[in-house]
Amino acid sequence: MKKLYIIGMGPGDLNYLAPAARKALAASSDIVAYQLYLDLLGEVIADKQHHALDLGKEIERAELALNLAAEKQCVALVSSGDAGIFAMATLVFELLDKQPKAIWNDIDIEVIAGISALQLAASRVGAPLAHDFCAISLSDLLTPWETINTRIHAAAQGDFVIAFYNPVSKKRDWQLDHAKQVLLKHRPTDCPVIIARNLSRPDENITVTTLEKLDSTQVDMLTLVMVGNSETRAFAKGVYTPRGYSKKLQLETQA
Amino acid sequence: MKKLYIIGMGPGDLNYLAPAARKALAASSDIVAYQLYLDLLGEVIADKQHHALDLGKEIERAELALNLAAEKQCVALVSSGDAGIFAMATLVFELLDKQPKAIWNDIDIEVIAGISALQLAASRVGAPLAHDFCAISLSDLLTPWETINTRIHAAAQGDFVIAFYNPVSKKRDWQLDHAKQVLLKHRPTDCPVIIARNLSRPDENITVTTLEKLDSTQVDMLTLVMVGNSETRAFAKGVYTPRGYSKKLQLETQA
Repeated sequence: MKKLYIIGMGPGDLNYLAPAARKALAASSDIVAYQLYLDLLGEVIADKQHHALDLGKEIERAELALNLAAEKQCVALVSSGDAGIFAMATLVFELLDKQPKAIWNDIDIEVIAGISALQLAASRVGAPLAHDFCAISLSDLLTPWETINTRIHAAAQGDFVIAFYNPVSKKRDWQLDHAKQVLLKHRPTDCPVIIARNLSRPDENITVTTLEKLDSTQVDMLTLVMVGNSETRAFAKGVYTPRGYSKKLQLETQA
Repeated sequence: MKKLYIIGMGPGDLNYLAPAARKALAASSDIVAYQLYLDLLGEVIADKQHHALDLGKEIERAELALNLAAEKQCVALVSSGDAGIFAMATLVFELLDKQPKAIWNDIDIEVIAGISALQLAASRVGAPLAHDFCAISLSDLLTPWETINTRIHAAAQGDFVIAFYNPVSKKRDWQLDHAKQVLLKHRPTDCPVIIARNLSRPDENITVTTLEKLDSTQVDMLTLVMVGNSETRAFAKGVYTPRGYSKKLQLETQA
């Protein structure tokens, strides 16, 4: 059986590369990824064939990975974060579904989950994701703005902790401000906001501010913005969203 | 500096235990966790002092971890999944915030993220989490049902992919059916639903069904239920939520 691994390598720091991902990389002859991720993997894939395609070449990268897997025995397509969350895995399945090629038929696809940016950002400041949360991409390149806006309003009304992916880009600078204004109608002005830039890279920078003070000019595409819910608290030791445990009720969930 | 690591060990399969988590466990003298997780960690923590407290003893477990960290140099508190997602980390911060003890003052707290159930469930079937998603716990032990119900409606209106944690328990069997009825007003009857039971355990069982056919009697507390959005597709090779890549637009997000 031919094999295509779709691997989430986590935030970049190899301390978050799961053993499952490492084994899958070791089993693969060829690694397809954006060049930065090949560089970050470094020694882990030193003896492999590398295939780098630029940002913007996502369809080509997915297609190349499938074609290589059809030709060779075992190939890996690598995303940062979790390959299944705002990343490459879905594109492979979309190609298989909508533009299938006969040579792809006998490829076994295996997705290997990785730590996504919202998790690392949360862990750096405490436990802001401890209650119901959502992830919203503010990029309108692939999603109509109306859909995104509906989700911002829904997340505000539902009082979800929100992780905004792709919050701001050079060409797109007003969506985060809009989201802030919508959220200010539902949450306190001092609602904690986490601005996590270049997570796990040498220049990682994490700041905790408030919804009122959230300044979109401090945010770019390499930043994840997380907004607490109406109960999220920031104090000297960190930021957390309470689950109500202090009510001392019996707990039936995971421990 | 005294240290308390709060570690997400992932779903149980040590192939998802991050090197960062393994190093933190190695550095710790004492491990505090529910007994099952101590058993799953096995050899990794064979030479450590173990402290198991039963389910329901979450406050006691967090307090014990803090007290041990105050007494010793380095201690680890372990959750399954991601310690920050519906798990133990928030309770430590809540104790530090609301019931601080002087002996806890000089403890450095470090949270280490792990793979959460929604990620492993998604990876097992394809890429259902590839667009905006949310996580909702249906347990009303710590959250008023009105809050949960508001979130179900908000998630339905926002067309989020939804991961339901704690979907059903022995005493609580109607909330998932209620959520199903709410979602059926907003999504197609054939909207893909993933039922993931005992993830990464020897008896792991994953089925893909539809919203219409979702049967809550097949679901228990060890199950994660994931409902696709209105565009999620199930086909022979898996389940995925398209991001619109096939429109061949330039992509500014992570690759």
